[in-house]
Amino acid sequence: MKNAIGREIPETISGIAAIKPFAGAFTAVPEMARQAPKVKIIKPTDRKLVDSLVEVFKKIPVTDGMTLSFHHHFRNGDGVVNMVLATAAQLGLKNLTVALSSVFPVHAPIIDHVKNGVVTGLDTNYMSGPVAQAVSKGLFDKPVILRTHGGRGRAIECGQLKIDVAFIAAPAADEYGNLNGVEGPAACGSLGYAFPDAQYADYVVAVTDYLGEYPLSPISIPQTRVDYVVKVECVGDPKGIVSGTTRITKDPVGLKIAETAAKVIQATGLIKNGFAFQTGAGGASLATAAFVRKMMEKDSVVGSFALGGITGYMVDMLESGLFKKLMDVQGFDLEAIRSLSTNPNHLEIGADFYASPFNAGCAVNQLDVVILGATEMDTDFNVNVVTGSDGVIMGGSGGHADAAAGAKVTIIVANLLRGRLPIIVNKVLTATTPGETIDVLVTERGVAVNPLRGDLKEKFLAAGLPVKDIQELKQLAEKIAGAPKAIKTGENIVAVVEYRDGTIIDVVRQVEG
Amino acid sequence: MKNAIGREIPETISGIAAIKPFAGAFTAVPEMARQAPKVKIIKPTDRKLVDSLVEVFKKIPVTDGMTLSFHHHFRNGDGVVNMVLATAAQLGLKNLTVALSSVFPVHAPIIDHVKNGVVTGLDTNYMSGPVAQAVSKGLFDKPVILRTHGGRGRAIECGQLKIDVAFIAAPAADEYGNLNGVEGPAACGSLGYAFPDAQYADYVVAVTDYLGEYPLSPISIPQTRVDYVVKVECVGDPKGIVSGTTRITKDPVGLKIAETAAKVIQATGLIKNGFAFQTGAGGASLATAAFVRKMMEKDSVVGSFALGGITGYMVDMLESGLFKKLMDVQGFDLEAIRSLSTNPNHLEIGADFYASPFNAGCAVNQLDVVILGATEMDTDFNVNVVTGSDGVIMGGSGGHADAAAGAKVTIIVANLLRGRLPIIVNKVLTATTPGETIDVLVTERGVAVNPLRGDLKEKFLAAGLPVKDIQELKQLAEKIAGAPKAIKTGENIVAVVEYRDGTIIDVVRQVEG
Repeated sequence: MKNAIGREIPETISGIAAIKPFAGAFTAVPEMARQAPKVKIIKPTDRKLVDSLVEVFKKIPVTDGMTLSFHHHFRNGDGVVNMVLATAAQLGLKNLTVALSSVFPVHAPIIDHVKNGVVTGLDTNYMSGPVAQAVSKGLFDKPVILRTHGGRGRAIECGQLKIDVAFIAAPAADEYGNLNGVEGPAACGSLGYAFPDAQYADYVVAVTDYLGEYPLSPISIPQTRVDYVVKVECVGDPKGIVSGTTRITKDPVGLKIAETAAKVIQATGLIKNGFAFQTGAGGASLATAAFVRKMMEKDSVVGSFALGGITGYMVDMLESGLFKKLMDVQGFDLEAIRSLSTNPNHLEIGADFYASPFNAGCAVNQLDVVILGATEMDTDFNVNVVTGSDGVIMGGSGGHADAAAGAKVTIIVANLLRGRLPIIVNKVLTATTPGETIDVLVTERGVAVNPLRGDLKEKFLAAGLPVKDIQELKQLAEKIAGAPKAIKTGENIVAVVEYRDGTIIDVVRQVEG
Repeated sequence: MKNAIGREIPETISGIAAIKPFAGAFTAVPEMARQAPKVKIIKPTDRKLVDSLVEVFKKIPVTDGMTLSFHHHFRNGDGVVNMVLATAAQLGLKNLTVALSSVFPVHAPIIDHVKNGVVTGLDTNYMSGPVAQAVSKGLFDKPVILRTHGGRGRAIECGQLKIDVAFIAAPAADEYGNLNGVEGPAACGSLGYAFPDAQYADYVVAVTDYLGEYPLSPISIPQTRVDYVVKVECVGDPKGIVSGTTRITKDPVGLKIAETAAKVIQATGLIKNGFAFQTGAGGASLATAAFVRKMMEKDSVVGSFALGGITGYMVDMLESGLFKKLMDVQGFDLEAIRSLSTNPNHLEIGADFYASPFNAGCAVNQLDVVILGATEMDTDFNVNVVTGSDGVIMGGSGGHADAAAGAKVTIIVANLLRGRLPIIVNKVLTATTPGETIDVLVTERGVAVNPLRGDLKEKFLAAGLPVKDIQELKQLAEKIAGAPKAIKTGENIVAVVEYRDGTIIDVVRQVEG
């Protein structure tokens, strides 16, 4: 069957219970109650501190077939996933599902656990590095589920991702299970992506290398939801948090795109008091923020909030009075961590608050503008951020589809050519974010506006912006680099791309390996 | 049938689904999942601000037979309960259950709503004033359910108190439903008792008289759980928050009891670094705190935290460095409100975090000592804080039974004679808190220790405290005032006293009226 954006979705997929094809960004209407974790009791004299992961595994007990969840705030510096899975392997456990909000190169040991049958399922919002490559080559017998950050929150809240045991890498904990990410030797800042796990898992285990006095505060995850606290040598390396560039690009093409993107935002008329903004940690996104900042300063605009993963650049804008608040689901650098721990206007929010589509209103809904990237975009404005030019998985939606759905104006910034391949194609290899939620593409050779947004096109033309039809931009790229060859993939489905509402927006097929 | 403390509990009670008799303070072991509210969706462009309560009632819609919940942080200054019920009456609704965490004299209009059939059920943790008196005289056709603060959290979490619509009196809100109690003209401080309502109700309505800019922060109740925001003239009068005395008693008998209680605490050996303490807002409780404070100062003891309803006296101890943290479920005066809004070591906690027995560990479990009152105590140390000497309801457990169950040492402070009646009786009229959770009774004529706590008795004797058998204290009182006459009650059950774990610890029968 074909879904609402014309992607071929099989009627059945091994390991996926019910296939609901994507039907439009705001079409799915839930009729259900939320998931609810087990009710448990603890006596006043009971203690939660246990000596080792092995002991925790035995106390719960963790058994074959369970789903263990993890968060990714340590990014490539994470130490807890490997530690927990090594324990599972040591105890001879099999058939576990790993629900890890994002997978990084550091998580390569997962590959061996899959080969040994310890892990048989993976549920994540983003993956890069050896695991992603191995998945693309058919590592798992059943497809990996790729969600969005908000969709993962929704899946947990609604019981589609039922977590048996959540392992929280906690930079700071007290012995009764109050946790935060702003204290301790491995402070990582916000623990937002772990909030739904902590709220809905049947068992919650805090893994920490820093025990503070009771009651630890601020309390990011409360004692009422934490069953065990395990002290280990080291939960992670905060240096690994800063992955990729978090500096403004110096590339002249990147700067040109950023400047154009800022002018696009200005032309929308949204840069005024109360402006609400999200941008990524990449160089071009930050450069856009820098141009927007100049506009705000020039016109004495005070923005309402910046949202998402937070960088030092956003912290500086907060501290300079350009935004009144930051809402932080993940810290990207040490400045973000420092600010969260000291500035009451820097708010820690959970993945559900950030972006879950099935609650009484998530933060992305309040965004004016979001700046996002793409590895490919098609002429219907559908975006791919999952697979690269070779068809191999090298990312994932993260908050991409969430912010795009919520913001008044969603802007993709991208070089017209990525490597030597055009960014605009007839049909993206993998659709991640539906075109109806993408408003503008900004490249160094022009700006394409989604036909759904005639209002914006008029404004951009009036502002003298280089508006071009997306077909025209595509031809421009193809004139330089030629039409890209179709990527050859096999039949085997290695991953299912779930839209934030739980419908299937696309599948990823195996590449030759 | 008789429950574990020998109270006669009927096999069936009209309006109560399943009668589980009290079986011991830590006996009930839940085997269930938590309650889960409806999953709802809101589109990015949807707005939550509505013009009037009538409009909210129609949008939800509120229908006959629903349970509407409210919190009591405005105490006798609350404006929202009456406003909402007047709307219900105006719209001709019938058969509503009011789940209001505590009922005060200001809530007298409930009586007419019951007479008119608008309200037919009441679920609360405490009541005083006209409604309490009317309940005692048989106002309702079915019994009122009296819970504890922690038990109410548990009942909501576990679905025994299923809330259709929670109305949150919010001193400050933004248009998207982020709420706090520390801003606005009617700031009341902590909104802790409303946290479970907001988390588990199918619909949540914020009623506010102060709209701040988005995103309002601190966020006590998040936008993700709030469906509608209604702006009204006035949500309440913060002057009504200070009900009863929150000053240290000047009565010499009260001071003597307080001094003895402080010596009792000292003799337990618990006044040392890390000391964790809860005391009420009454004059004798505060006087005890003042004596304890002197001991802490003398020995340079730094306590861990003070818990519960928070007074300016506790704020002063925090600010003087005598406690490291305050955990605040309810503010008792303006100092508590100021401190919560400015001091990061003054933490706002929900009723569930405070005292729910069926989660992974509530704060009362971490208490060293709690000081509580009593209207009566029997020779088995069972305490009554529900009915007065005339059998009329004049209070309720609130956090009484919760803190008693959690703390290492629970101390009742009471005059040996209350009015002209002995405080110690053979059998309390209404058992609220089981004797197994009460350790010490301190009166002006001596200290009685629960036989279960031989360890404490030895320490008190070694400290030269006036330890007496409870029978001896009882006889002493009776020598002065004579044995009290039994209170005559009718057969009709007007209230069921639920222990924090959901079992029935006693019933309240109708008085002649």
